[in-house]
Amino acid sequence: MKSTFAEALRSGLDRQFCNVRRQTESLCEPLSPEDMMVQSCPEASPAKWHLAHTTWFFETFLLSEFVSGYKPFDPDYRWLFNSYYNAVSQQPVKQLRGSFSRPSLEDILAYRGFVDAAMLRLMKGDVPAEVERRITLGLNHEQQHQELLAYDIKNAFWTNPLHPAYRDGALPESGMARPVQWIGHEGGLVEIGHRGKGFCFDNELPRHKVFLKPFDLASRLVNCGEYLDFMRDGGYERAELWLSDGWDMVRAQQWRAPLYWFEEDGAWRVFTLRGSVALSELIATPVCHVSYYEADAFARWSGKRLPTEAEWEIAAEGVPVNGNLVESGTLHPIAANAEDGLQQMFGDVWEWTASAYLGYPGYAALPGALGEYNGKFMSNQMVLRGGSAVTPDQHVRATYRNFFAPASRWQFCGVRLANRQE
Amino acid sequence: MKSTFAEALRSGLDRQFCNVRRQTESLCEPLSPEDMMVQSCPEASPAKWHLAHTTWFFETFLLSEFVSGYKPFDPDYRWLFNSYYNAVSQQPVKQLRGSFSRPSLEDILAYRGFVDAAMLRLMKGDVPAEVERRITLGLNHEQQHQELLAYDIKNAFWTNPLHPAYRDGALPESGMARPVQWIGHEGGLVEIGHRGKGFCFDNELPRHKVFLKPFDLASRLVNCGEYLDFMRDGGYERAELWLSDGWDMVRAQQWRAPLYWFEEDGAWRVFTLRGSVALSELIATPVCHVSYYEADAFARWSGKRLPTEAEWEIAAEGVPVNGNLVESGTLHPIAANAEDGLQQMFGDVWEWTASAYLGYPGYAALPGALGEYNGKFMSNQMVLRGGSAVTPDQHVRATYRNFFAPASRWQFCGVRLANRQE
Amino acid sequence: MKSTFAEALRSGLDRQFCNVRRQTESLCEPLSPEDMMVQSCPEASPAKWHLAHTTWFFETFLLSEFVSGYKPFDPDYRWLFNSYYNAVSQQPVKQLRGSFSRPSLEDILAYRGFVDAAMLRLMKGDVPAEVERRITLGLNHEQQHQELLAYDIKNAFWTNPLHPAYRDGALPESGMARPVQWIGHEGGLVEIGHRGKGFCFDNELPRHKVFLKPFDLASRLVNCGEYLDFMRDGGYERAELWLSDGWDMVRAQQWRAPLYWFEEDGAWRVFTLRGSVALSELIATPVCHVSYYEADAFARWSGKRLPTEAEWEIAAEGVPVNGNLVESGTLHPIAANAEDGLQQMFGDVWEWTASAYLGYPGYAALPGALGEYNGKFMSNQMVLRGGSAVTPDQHVRATYRNFFAPASRWQFCGVRLANRQE
Amino acid sequence: MKSTFAEALRSGLDRQFCNVRRQTESLCEPLSPEDMMVQSCPEASPAKWHLAHTTWFFETFLLSEFVSGYKPFDPDYRWLFNSYYNAVSQQPVKQLRGSFSRPSLEDILAYRGFVDAAMLRLMKGDVPAEVERRITLGLNHEQQHQELLAYDIKNAFWTNPLHPAYRDGALPESGMARPVQWIGHEGGLVEIGHRGKGFCFDNELPRHKVFLKPFDLASRLVNCGEYLDFMRDGGYERAELWLSDGWDMVRAQQWRAPLYWFEEDGAWRVFTLRGSVALSELIATPVCHVSYYEADAFARWSGKRLPTEAEWEIAAEGVPVNGNLVESGTLHPIAANAEDGLQQMFGDVWEWTASAYLGYPGYAALPGALGEYNGKFMSNQMVLRGGSAVTPDQHVRATYRNFFAPASRWQFCGVRLANRQE
Repeated sequence: MKSTFAEALRSGLDRQFCNVRRQTESLCEPLSPEDMMVQSCPEASPAKWHLAHTTWFFETFLLSEFVSGYKPFDPDYRWLFNSYYNAVSQQPVKQLRGSFSRPSLEDILAYRGFVDAAMLRLMKGDVPAEVERRITLGLNHEQQHQELLAYDIKNAFWTNPLHPAYRDGALPESGMARPVQWIGHEGGLVEIGHRGKGFCFDNELPRHKVFLKPFDLASRLVNCGEYLDFMRDGGYERAELWLSDGWDMVRAQQWRAPLYWFEEDGAWRVFTLRGSVALSELIATPVCHVSYYEADAFARWSGKRLPTEAEWEIAAEGVPVNGNLVESGTLHPIAANAEDGLQQMFGDVWEWTASAYLGYPGYAALPGALGEYNGKFMSNQMVLRGGSAVTPDQHVRATYRNFFAPASRWQFCGVRLANRQE
Repeated sequence: MKSTFAEALRSGLDRQFCNVRRQTESLCEPLSPEDMMVQSCPEASPAKWHLAHTTWFFETFLLSEFVSGYKPFDPDYRWLFNSYYNAVSQQPVKQLRGSFSRPSLEDILAYRGFVDAAMLRLMKGDVPAEVERRITLGLNHEQQHQELLAYDIKNAFWTNPLHPAYRDGALPESGMARPVQWIGHEGGLVEIGHRGKGFCFDNELPRHKVFLKPFDLASRLVNCGEYLDFMRDGGYERAELWLSDGWDMVRAQQWRAPLYWFEEDGAWRVFTLRGSVALSELIATPVCHVSYYEADAFARWSGKRLPTEAEWEIAAEGVPVNGNLVESGTLHPIAANAEDGLQQMFGDVWEWTASAYLGYPGYAALPGALGEYNGKFMSNQMVLRGGSAVTPDQHVRATYRNFFAPASRWQFCGVRLANRQE
Repeated sequence: MKSTFAEALRSGLDRQFCNVRRQTESLCEPLSPEDMMVQSCPEASPAKWHLAHTTWFFETFLLSEFVSGYKPFDPDYRWLFNSYYNAVSQQPVKQLRGSFSRPSLEDILAYRGFVDAAMLRLMKGDVPAEVERRITLGLNHEQQHQELLAYDIKNAFWTNPLHPAYRDGALPESGMARPVQWIGHEGGLVEIGHRGKGFCFDNELPRHKVFLKPFDLASRLVNCGEYLDFMRDGGYERAELWLSDGWDMVRAQQWRAPLYWFEEDGAWRVFTLRGSVALSELIATPVCHVSYYEADAFARWSGKRLPTEAEWEIAAEGVPVNGNLVESGTLHPIAANAEDGLQQMFGDVWEWTASAYLGYPGYAALPGALGEYNGKFMSNQMVLRGGSAVTPDQHVRATYRNFFAPASRWQFCGVRLANRQE
Repeated sequence: MKSTFAEALRSGLDRQFCNVRRQTESLCEPLSPEDMMVQSCPEASPAKWHLAHTTWFFETFLLSEFVSGYKPFDPDYRWLFNSYYNAVSQQPVKQLRGSFSRPSLEDILAYRGFVDAAMLRLMKGDVPAEVERRITLGLNHEQQHQELLAYDIKNAFWTNPLHPAYRDGALPESGMARPVQWIGHEGGLVEIGHRGKGFCFDNELPRHKVFLKPFDLASRLVNCGEYLDFMRDGGYERAELWLSDGWDMVRAQQWRAPLYWFEEDGAWRVFTLRGSVALSELIATPVCHVSYYEADAFARWSGKRLPTEAEWEIAAEGVPVNGNLVESGTLHPIAANAEDGLQQMFGDVWEWTASAYLGYPGYAALPGALGEYNGKFMSNQMVLRGGSAVTPDQHVRATYRNFFAPASRWQFCGVRLANRQE
């Protein structure tokens, strides 16, 4: 019995492996080898590097450890494409990734093929539990890099003065914004964190009790029209609306709008993966590419606040994971369109929460080098929830904790407001 | 009846006011006007500036608002000695405070006298509740600056290549370190945050429920001997012990010991407010001037962890506020010496917690300019608890939340470990 | 008669144009489109950008001005590939050139073809003198970028951790170093600066009188063996050998050898355009990639000095322009091999002089935008003379003034000593 | 005979020594010990440090070397007050001089007295030639620091938001500007550099021949009115007027006027050592505190140029050293007032020349540590000539070469134009 079940599972893993791997490559279809060289900001990596590093993960943590006598595709790749795992090897300085013209894209695609073949062999027959766990981790890792690849290519094309589009075709019609409803929750002693047998990252564990006061969550995300009101009300000029560090950023970076907004002939336009679009056409769509500081200032200006991650998770519990995720093909947040009820919880934009990214009570990192995956980043970052228009739907869930530095805004991130808590 | 009580209270306020104001000046007794000019690191201000700014607080928030027809000592001081209250006025750039040779120390002392006299007049007769609240806030504000003054003068004398001592006289004998005991707590649904009628800062409110798992707290602070073991075990060379941001700091700043430790003729010495001392004489005293990153790395190396602020507060509840605070006159942490039981909760060093500095559920800043006191700093900082050897005993309490950036270590800060939480 | 002569001249110009343009492309033969994207240091540009910008020069300063009704290949290119000519248009920030994945290499090659064809049409028939002057300037401009392209691709491959080689094939055998001879010159009231009808840059004019004391010039360049002696004698640790700014660089950049020297298994190796080579094989070859500060410190350590540009030019007068220039195909400096006499004046490495790069007496920049070519860089740079192993032989001459900031060393630059001057 | 002469000389040296040393102290009379602590920009040092360092010079290079058994005032001072003489000792980082609250001003004055007394004993009896040379060097060194002290205290008071005045009393009436006359010189093979037996710095030697074309020198300095015309004509907005490095500074530093000019209520004011003054009252006075880049841009805008140092020196030969030097007590440049002829060659402002600061042909630094005095700064600086309103008249001469980085402008520096040179 067990073996049949395992077989089924395995064949599922096979299929899932192939799907995820192909998806990464299909994201690169609109890109030339030259496009895949660009590294345009300190957060970003070239697309080619993402192709290689995700492959490195499987070679390093699966093939090298579980296939006896495995001969690597190229021994140099072990350190060349290591991102930050000190326990594996030293790493090239991140900013040099833009110098990796060699290995060529062709070489990297051959590397992918080589590792894929070896992985498929490994997945034949009995797959030990640890191998399966690591493959699943590797696939989730690759999905994260799919999303980063979208962020990075957007920034690459933005810093190109010609502002090329990644994909052709118009965004869906935005429609009219509906008024926000406030969805009440009673709070109390609740539990958050992952449960059950499905995959999760170590930072979603352990499931634990949290006490919440009653709260309200906005039925939809803050949209561009609302954000424009904030700007027009002097949002970027009023110190009293900002955290002190945020205000320092506003002045140092001369922020006066979200990233990718620019003025042309006196009107705002927004650069998207489909080229630049008049802001007027996006008024009802969720504001995107705002930092935590901007999200927080907007909330203060609104007389509301950002939700905590526990509030968000309790509200999201039981909500099906669907919405404007990468499978929708929009590649940009779209307007909420339901008559009422909680909307846009998954997809569109990652939602900044008021919670710092720290370990849950009893948090333990994975053993060995894989323990560097999440734990060592638990300082100076804020938690975001819910996925974005470039997140795979198989990747995100209610307990998923994304995290970024409060000043970063090249990722697809936006704002949902919360209310009440006295 | 009420009037008698108010009278007594007021006269208490009088006395308290005078005590706190005199205490600031007595901290400056060992300093020359030249010493009081030094601003030796971005976190620090000159001592003279502290004398002026604490006075500015009373003139700005009390005299100018509650004394009709009040004529300020010098109208320029309103903006000159403003630290960061945007709602009051623009402020000189912080790093320029070292250029304030004028007004002279003599002028600032005259300013203090002028404001003190006006304040004592204000405190005569019926004192409205809001006035009393603000005076109390002003006194707590001044006590915070007393502590900062100690940090700053220590750094000033450290950057002077001659390493002068602030006070003469030896530190107390350190004695032997006793083994740590683990004090158990059962956790559960508990309450933290300030209650009752006494003064607290807005960030200690509202009192609220938190769910805690059972945990153990170390009976005493980590001492220099234990920290030296960490160093000798390669603590500053092993990436796996560090948060990623911490490891970046170690390499960028070339940290290899706590701040104020230096090697001379092959032996470690420690610079203190009483001059430099051989580390060997301080082995049993709490390690001091370590950043959050170092505290966290030490805890990881120990196989333990830092407590959360809620754990710390629950453990501290009911513990009397005494210990090695500024009144002890040591000006440096000293060794724990009790046979057993929880020790050093108050005084010695501020204890880094694993909690980010954020608003409690339902937190509301004070209205108006005073709302800038605490709330706008709620990002990128960690909470510390318990006070230090340079904290006034009337200033600290179990619910008191101090906060600093994780990389900062010029303040008197150290480590208490926690354990168990599965 | 005149027309026949002009015809011949023109056909010479045609041929020269084609030769120079083809040479740029042939330099790119070993490069993939990905290689041509890399921008690895602030001084450098991607190879593709060099291909485009040199073409832009002809389109902007020839076709757009002298071909009536000329329709540009792409109107955006006018500002996109402008380097620093403020009078033409605004320019993209230099560091963004690495983001120009679009236009593709294919587009840029089409741009080259389009402009080449239009240029050949322009060169048909009577070519006005100003057109001819500008074409010649454009060709010299392109040759400068050929050389920069070699510097930049060397740096690109160096920052690639795999250290790929630009060309295969070994460097010529280095042989033994011969002792330096001192070639005497009597000085006096001499003339320097360009004369005659041939092309020169504006900065080589006007020819003018300079008074020189008698001096000696070394018969050959300083070689790697001699430079290694300097290093072994503590050259990089002895402040007294250095200019103050140079010593600051040594400490800030932790310089301890020329650029592209690295230690492997305890032995020095040198990265070249043909991959890395043991220093032991290059002992007799000229030291290359040292900054002005290093050249100056080496000279001081030797008890000698660097020549002034006037001394160098007087010594070079009448010396035929041949030697190890780009046509030799070595792509690296090679050892001097003549029995005696002045050697290596042209080719191998640009020779740092003791002269600051300033305008000659009566210097006047070209009118209009082309006046920005040279004149605006006349501060904070030093003059270098003689060309390098990657300089075209038709490009350099005795009066040619190259210039770089004293700290820069990614260019092919080395040292010739001078002596006597009391 | 010789001894009598030596006696006279010595007593002259005595007197000179006392005069210079007293002059330094009298410059500090308007300053409090607190004022003498301020270090307000990277170029500046605290006044107290100048008092100490000039004394250190005599103790280090005279008393320690020529007085057998000399016991220093405090052995720590040898390294503490060393500025940049690597051959003497390591030095504290320059930016830490603002932390030297100890030794106190009182201590430093005692140090001065101690060293003065020992120096006077040394000057009794036969003074060896080398001792006399060094004393003279020490006095010239001290005069340079007197001038730096004036720059530094001006900057200190400028960065104090209260803008205190160093001295009371109005500046002299500015009067009307007279038109510039062009004073012709025929050029030819001339000699520059110091000659004769009087003191000079090593960088004024050797006297050597230079060939000059005929040139014209402006009869007076550029004044504020003329500079204002440049500003109003878009001087700070027109890239074509600037050297490339200068234009980068304009944008990075947001320069839009000389240092110490500021706008108040729509009108320009100028901060001086006598407090701030309306620009309208200074229209005919020489513009001051402009960088080399600004001087060069102004000259280009004028259709003129800056003189070379050789041109300046030839024009200054035989001109008596008098004018608005420190002895005039103005502490600020004043308007030229003669009917005609060459004016303002000495005093008012140091005049930027078009010459880079390099060694003259055959230049040799002094032997030993004193060789670090001038030679090691011969890169990245431009020569200025003529002295300023804060230069002692005994200090400057026609051959005197001052030098500063082209971007620096906290020193008293301005512009004289030259013309003709074809």
